[in-house]
Amino acid sequence: MTGRIIVINPNSTEAVTEAMDRALDPLRLAGAPEIESVTNANGPAGIECQAHADDVSRDIRRIIAERDADAAAFVIACFSDPGIYAAREATSRPVFGIAESGMLTAMSLGAKVGVIAILSRSVPRHMRYFRGIGVEGRVAGDRGIELGVVELSDESKTFERMVQVGTTLRDTDGANVLVMGCAGMARYRERLSDRLGIPVVDPTQAAVSMAIGAVMLRQTNGLAAAPAMAAE
Amino acid sequence: MTGRIIVINPNSTEAVTEAMDRALDPLRLAGAPEIESVTNANGPAGIECQAHADDVSRDIRRIIAERDADAAAFVIACFSDPGIYAAREATSRPVFGIAESGMLTAMSLGAKVGVIAILSRSVPRHMRYFRGIGVEGRVAGDRGIELGVVELSDESKTFERMVQVGTTLRDTDGANVLVMGCAGMARYRERLSDRLGIPVVDPTQAAVSMAIGAVMLRQTNGLAAAPAMAAE
Amino acid sequence: MTGRIIVINPNSTEAVTEAMDRALDPLRLAGAPEIESVTNANGPAGIECQAHADDVSRDIRRIIAERDADAAAFVIACFSDPGIYAAREATSRPVFGIAESGMLTAMSLGAKVGVIAILSRSVPRHMRYFRGIGVEGRVAGDRGIELGVVELSDESKTFERMVQVGTTLRDTDGANVLVMGCAGMARYRERLSDRLGIPVVDPTQAAVSMAIGAVMLRQTNGLAAAPAMAAE
Amino acid sequence: MTGRIIVINPNSTEAVTEAMDRALDPLRLAGAPEIESVTNANGPAGIECQAHADDVSRDIRRIIAERDADAAAFVIACFSDPGIYAAREATSRPVFGIAESGMLTAMSLGAKVGVIAILSRSVPRHMRYFRGIGVEGRVAGDRGIELGVVELSDESKTFERMVQVGTTLRDTDGANVLVMGCAGMARYRERLSDRLGIPVVDPTQAAVSMAIGAVMLRQTNGLAAAPAMAAE
Amino acid sequence: MTGRIIVINPNSTEAVTEAMDRALDPLRLAGAPEIESVTNANGPAGIECQAHADDVSRDIRRIIAERDADAAAFVIACFSDPGIYAAREATSRPVFGIAESGMLTAMSLGAKVGVIAILSRSVPRHMRYFRGIGVEGRVAGDRGIELGVVELSDESKTFERMVQVGTTLRDTDGANVLVMGCAGMARYRERLSDRLGIPVVDPTQAAVSMAIGAVMLRQTNGLAAAPAMAAE
Amino acid sequence: MTGRIIVINPNSTEAVTEAMDRALDPLRLAGAPEIESVTNANGPAGIECQAHADDVSRDIRRIIAERDADAAAFVIACFSDPGIYAAREATSRPVFGIAESGMLTAMSLGAKVGVIAILSRSVPRHMRYFRGIGVEGRVAGDRGIELGVVELSDESKTFERMVQVGTTLRDTDGANVLVMGCAGMARYRERLSDRLGIPVVDPTQAAVSMAIGAVMLRQTNGLAAAPAMAAE
Repeated sequence: MTGRIIVINPNSTEAVTEAMDRALDPLRLAGAPEIESVTNANGPAGIECQAHADDVSRDIRRIIAERDADAAAFVIACFSDPGIYAAREATSRPVFGIAESGMLTAMSLGAKVGVIAILSRSVPRHMRYFRGIGVEGRVAGDRGIELGVVELSDESKTFERMVQVGTTLRDTDGANVLVMGCAGMARYRERLSDRLGIPVVDPTQAAVSMAIGAVMLRQTNGLAAAPAMAAE
Repeated sequence: MTGRIIVINPNSTEAVTEAMDRALDPLRLAGAPEIESVTNANGPAGIECQAHADDVSRDIRRIIAERDADAAAFVIACFSDPGIYAAREATSRPVFGIAESGMLTAMSLGAKVGVIAILSRSVPRHMRYFRGIGVEGRVAGDRGIELGVVELSDESKTFERMVQVGTTLRDTDGANVLVMGCAGMARYRERLSDRLGIPVVDPTQAAVSMAIGAVMLRQTNGLAAAPAMAAE
Repeated sequence: MTGRIIVINPNSTEAVTEAMDRALDPLRLAGAPEIESVTNANGPAGIECQAHADDVSRDIRRIIAERDADAAAFVIACFSDPGIYAAREATSRPVFGIAESGMLTAMSLGAKVGVIAILSRSVPRHMRYFRGIGVEGRVAGDRGIELGVVELSDESKTFERMVQVGTTLRDTDGANVLVMGCAGMARYRERLSDRLGIPVVDPTQAAVSMAIGAVMLRQTNGLAAAPAMAAE
Repeated sequence: MTGRIIVINPNSTEAVTEAMDRALDPLRLAGAPEIESVTNANGPAGIECQAHADDVSRDIRRIIAERDADAAAFVIACFSDPGIYAAREATSRPVFGIAESGMLTAMSLGAKVGVIAILSRSVPRHMRYFRGIGVEGRVAGDRGIELGVVELSDESKTFERMVQVGTTLRDTDGANVLVMGCAGMARYRERLSDRLGIPVVDPTQAAVSMAIGAVMLRQTNGLAAAPAMAAE
Repeated sequence: MTGRIIVINPNSTEAVTEAMDRALDPLRLAGAPEIESVTNANGPAGIECQAHADDVSRDIRRIIAERDADAAAFVIACFSDPGIYAAREATSRPVFGIAESGMLTAMSLGAKVGVIAILSRSVPRHMRYFRGIGVEGRVAGDRGIELGVVELSDESKTFERMVQVGTTLRDTDGANVLVMGCAGMARYRERLSDRLGIPVVDPTQAAVSMAIGAVMLRQTNGLAAAPAMAAE
Repeated sequence: MTGRIIVINPNSTEAVTEAMDRALDPLRLAGAPEIESVTNANGPAGIECQAHADDVSRDIRRIIAERDADAAAFVIACFSDPGIYAAREATSRPVFGIAESGMLTAMSLGAKVGVIAILSRSVPRHMRYFRGIGVEGRVAGDRGIELGVVELSDESKTFERMVQVGTTLRDTDGANVLVMGCAGMARYRERLSDRLGIPVVDPTQAAVSMAIGAVMLRQTNGLAAAPAMAAE
């Protein structure tokens, strides 16, 4: 292989990177691109608001610049897809955002997509992004489990809230596929899918899956090409 | 691995299946699901109209039924995505249509998607499908190269027409990523991308890429789940 | 008159054809085209899933071919509009699908359209069709009465469920016109409209109404024309 | 029959009413509702701007009030659909606007609708109406023939311009069905359809066709019902 | 200053004009255009249905014609924006409708807009207007407080109903900004915003604010220009 | 007055700030809020790509924090609206982005909005923002004048290119109002409007106009409120 997939955790919490990385093991295949998860040591402990999302854009581009030589694709592993367009203008390699990839993947698995957010205050940010990428017509709903950091460490409580919210998304909003709106929920995916009887997408897994295909096919990204076109 | 990816060519032309299959070699990875391309011996020589698309639905489901035990995902390899929803209701395994997968993949690589069709008479069929899956807002244009079967066998003529149409899609319609609207064009992908300076997506490769991820993650499909829900 | 309107019941249940046919009596006018209802003897007992819808496409085209000489328009009388585009490519005569005609007619009678489905599992199929024909912005809601075949034969129970679902569509979803999402509900139309105080559209009646106009005006269909254009 | 269809020409030009009325002859069927065309003697000579459209609303309601007892449906025969919502609030009988009916009918005959306007300055008015009724996604284009009153009386010149504009709508904009955006063009319909090879809809004929169905089925309109609902 | 802003109350109730005018005091600035509120003596006591809205169009244009010489902009102060397009064709000065201005202003203050209507029977009229101006994607909901004229004079009852409806718009529909869907509610604006914790827009204030900018910058309106263009 | 409007030039070029500030003189009214333009000394010389836009978000928030005590509203004066949502989460004062305000203002002046960009490579960025704020349905076109920095200093060349592009937007794309897609073009506004016969919006003037109204009415912003809601 000519390069690896660099999965960038925009926040500085190593534990998040590690958990996320473990969830990518099913996608580590002999002959496929290596997958390397890196932590943005400069980032905040978590991306909790738009300010965090904007500010890590620079860090993400720095990591991309450092790794561009040995990388074949990048994944930005935060459901706000921070800095994604700036990253795409900065490298000709494909750059996948987990929110975008999660939604696109879900659209191939179900008719209406339900999104499980950590906090409902993220919903306006999500919705404007979904409108921006033109997929809002496929969104059934986007609802928060409303747990703070401390409560999120209580795995059974978190799972029960995900089941509650997922049930509402399925039965009231009409979702028949769910996306977990956070990079750190992969461990719940199969359990949640089994409990609710509909597919559940972990967005980081979705983005890395799309990246594998792009790398094997030596794909580029179209926004990198744009400046060259305008210069003609 | 627990299963293979069955790529179904809905038409009966073995040569198409073989060319398509060769184009999937970059996605054949040690440890990844095996990819097996099958021909619908009952199909027409090519899917040239909506009648063909409707009629192969039954054949596709028959192939799915025959292979469901050893398959982990299916790909329907015709840009009309014939029978896709019936297939999804018939198996709990993920089913990927190449039109849908091609568009979703292109949406991760560029801002506006240009589609290169064989004949412009397919455009209304494409557009109603794109509206049906909610991605029409990302379509820059859909234009035919207008070549008949005989002319398509002239590879240099075909390529030049693709360049012409692709240039119009890029410069007039504003596409910065292209999708080739046919299962049989993979051989032109890299050349066309190099010539036009923007990414080009082969939809069968896109669908198989998405299928690999779904299989590695043991994903199901949400339409299979729907009947069970309604029965509650 | 130069031809008759052939109303095709895609399923093989004669009783359905007969009930449907009786509901068309108000549209049988001296001087207007004759209306003839035909049963697809090859069809399933009912169109209950996408597979049924796909598979009857061929039968519908066969019936169209057999009757094209003495017909002036065709109606496909199943709310999935099975095979409608293939039919339109197969004859230059106008072809009306009852789902499409029902929705278009409802849009002329009210602001937001509520759809009463038999089973909620049909809703994703309906919604993707409504998106495909570009009318989803006018849909207030689509809800199932969730009755099985046996219960449907209990007329008073069926009617009460229609009232319940129609009330929810009117009061919660904001519909001020309803479409009955099935070819076999015509007998309830006036009663339901009286009870709910808003217009109710029987889709088969709507399609035949549109067909009468098209026949009197000797209209053709535009998809039949498409291939000729592409050949230029 | 319990009532007739009153076709209201909002302008005061009797010659327009007469020409329009002749074009409805194919829809005059034994046993079907009588069709009576009436002229708004108070109206301007033609509806040429939004002010005209707004001002005839009162006249239209007056005519409706005068004829409500013996009418079963009304048609407003001007492509601006002047006063249509006020009319619908004023009578429980169905009220059809020719722009709305023309577009809905065209949507059943082709994939993309081209509109032939008299003057391009009407296009913003049309487009905001099409958006208002939620059908803009099906509009291929709306183009004016740009003829003044004097030139419109030159039938061969008018026809040639319609052919030119229709050709552009078909070949550049991708329309495969046309709507004539004016009540007074019916005489060109069949000729234009023959010349261009795609169906052409006369909107007054379309509206009267829809009205016939509504009358035969004793349909009401849902906006009349709205106030009663709000009063509950 | 070269002109004043004429705020037209389309109804004939002087008390409404006076209350509305007082609410504009914060926008009366030294050096800024004068703001003059005028009552349509010919109008109904209130604009309660589409017929009223259509019929005052002529009065509004008469007022515009009378005041065009000393005006620099007009505001139509009724949430139905009656006669707005006719007015824009009748003067080259900018004409602001309070529904349009209220929605556009709210879109700059929040993500999803909730509309508080007097009566829910206005909602279909609002929604078709919002679709017509292309902002329906930003509407969270539109709900009536359902008070008659007598009850509206009970200020504390009215306010409590606005709080109830506003709470539903905020918590159930997801609005984070509200628009009061009536010219006569300005007195409640600050109180309601304080109680609900989200911004509340009075549409007349919004329209006059936009008008001030347009006047200071000597802006024209683009629909007045349209006829000239078509005449070229 | 209780506060001033702080207009933030995100780039570090003082000359741009000065030119922009001069263009705001018509909006400096006795009794109205003071308008103060500030330069982001940390910024790049111009915002030329998404990376620049992302990176100045932090600077903008720093300026907002420094000035929040004496400000009543903020304007971000770059057509990419960099950092606008982060800014809105950081202060309860209204924050106006010039792209958003320019588009909303244009929507009140014309039917279809044409955007004059500096470089066509910005168009994908613009379009995804327009989709994100839900106004893409009103965009006629977005076209670049394709001038580099050196050429932009040639005022007559720049103006001629704006006329050319504006003419195409008006005549080919159907715009009847234009927005200049850059903070530094105010000097051309009136000339361009006179030449083309349609209104032209300078987005910075538009944003400051909206800000004046918001300040006079002591408006807040709804995204600042969001976190409080989620905490309940």
